[in-house]
Amino acid sequence: MKIGLLGSGNVGQTLGTKLVQLGHDVMMGSRDSANPKGISWAKKEGHHALYGTFMNAAAFGEIIINSTLGSASIDALRQAGIENLKGKILIDTANPLDYSTKNWTLTVCNSDSLGEQIQRTFPEALVVKTLNTMYCDVMIDPRKLSEKTDVFVSGNDTEAKATVIAMLRDWFGWKSVIDLGDITTSRSVEMFVLLWHTLRDVGSSPRFNIKVVS
Amino acid sequence: MKIGLLGSGNVGQTLGTKLVQLGHDVMMGSRDSANPKGISWAKKEGHHALYGTFMNAAAFGEIIINSTLGSASIDALRQAGIENLKGKILIDTANPLDYSTKNWTLTVCNSDSLGEQIQRTFPEALVVKTLNTMYCDVMIDPRKLSEKTDVFVSGNDTEAKATVIAMLRDWFGWKSVIDLGDITTSRSVEMFVLLWHTLRDVGSSPRFNIKVVS
Repeated sequence: MKIGLLGSGNVGQTLGTKLVQLGHDVMMGSRDSANPKGISWAKKEGHHALYGTFMNAAAFGEIIINSTLGSASIDALRQAGIENLKGKILIDTANPLDYSTKNWTLTVCNSDSLGEQIQRTFPEALVVKTLNTMYCDVMIDPRKLSEKTDVFVSGNDTEAKATVIAMLRDWFGWKSVIDLGDITTSRSVEMFVLLWHTLRDVGSSPRFNIKVVS
Repeated sequence: MKIGLLGSGNVGQTLGTKLVQLGHDVMMGSRDSANPKGISWAKKEGHHALYGTFMNAAAFGEIIINSTLGSASIDALRQAGIENLKGKILIDTANPLDYSTKNWTLTVCNSDSLGEQIQRTFPEALVVKTLNTMYCDVMIDPRKLSEKTDVFVSGNDTEAKATVIAMLRDWFGWKSVIDLGDITTSRSVEMFVLLWHTLRDVGSSPRFNIKVVS
């Protein structure tokens, strides 16, 4: 599958490398087509890994993954081009975090969320929020943890969510995926990230996740 | 031990009954000393269960538990009387929820929290935020769940937190208590409640909790 991956940070690089290893063709995109992080990633990962602008990556992908910084995501997606997102699944892994203070805060929360903002701004994209509740190493290999844990999906399009749930299972080995409902449930998972951050601060490693136990 | 329990709703009644069963003397308080819910609770639970105003309950308790509605907590604690909270452990189980819309929202979040507001308003109380991340049946008996799960504590006073951690273990059977840090970490656990609510909506029962897995 051809995947357009927006963002060249830790999450983008980790997802991109895993997806190339799985046999996909991945174009990573960022603001600047001369971004050395993106260029060196593509070089390292071989001929199934490409690099370009947000627009190049979005035009390339049959599906799109947004792994940009949450505070920059809407702008990045605008650069990607509304016509390049139309009708495509847009997996949103971003969190609208402001890291400038010791206690992280969200730039949008409570009665709105980044997931909703993206869906509203690009109404013809099929936005599925997922994977934003854990560290990137755990995203691509949940079996590294000592027990089966949960990943969440939020989105308005049932078929798109079903496709993403299958991808989470087949690509990364997620056996327990909880469908939270429509895109408004992005609020819940984005607001959870502050607890994730607090747990990371008191724990020994960012490699953890939560499991819902009944 | 003499416990002053503020709030006569589900959480107050569930905690109060359990604490009386454990052999404590519990005075439940609410706004109105003629509140029929409080009076019938005290009658039902026998002579170790008392009922009165917020002020009566706070004056009675060696420790205080705030289980009022979060949106009314500061006012309830003012009625309890600053002098009745001074130097005492104040366990805060409340969430600042606005239930008026389908998607619950918080009345304070992100850069502040109810736990912090209480600590700021009553600086001589030893505020420990805990138990706000689960349904009341789970608070008092985590062993009902199929696996060991986690409860969190937040607070500025290390000794008060250690006392509360021991109480959580001895009173209710909590074996895994995660100390998140100072009272600012109340933000994390209060904001988590929206994910709790979403999970409750998609699940079959409110009787669940999360487990941190590494």
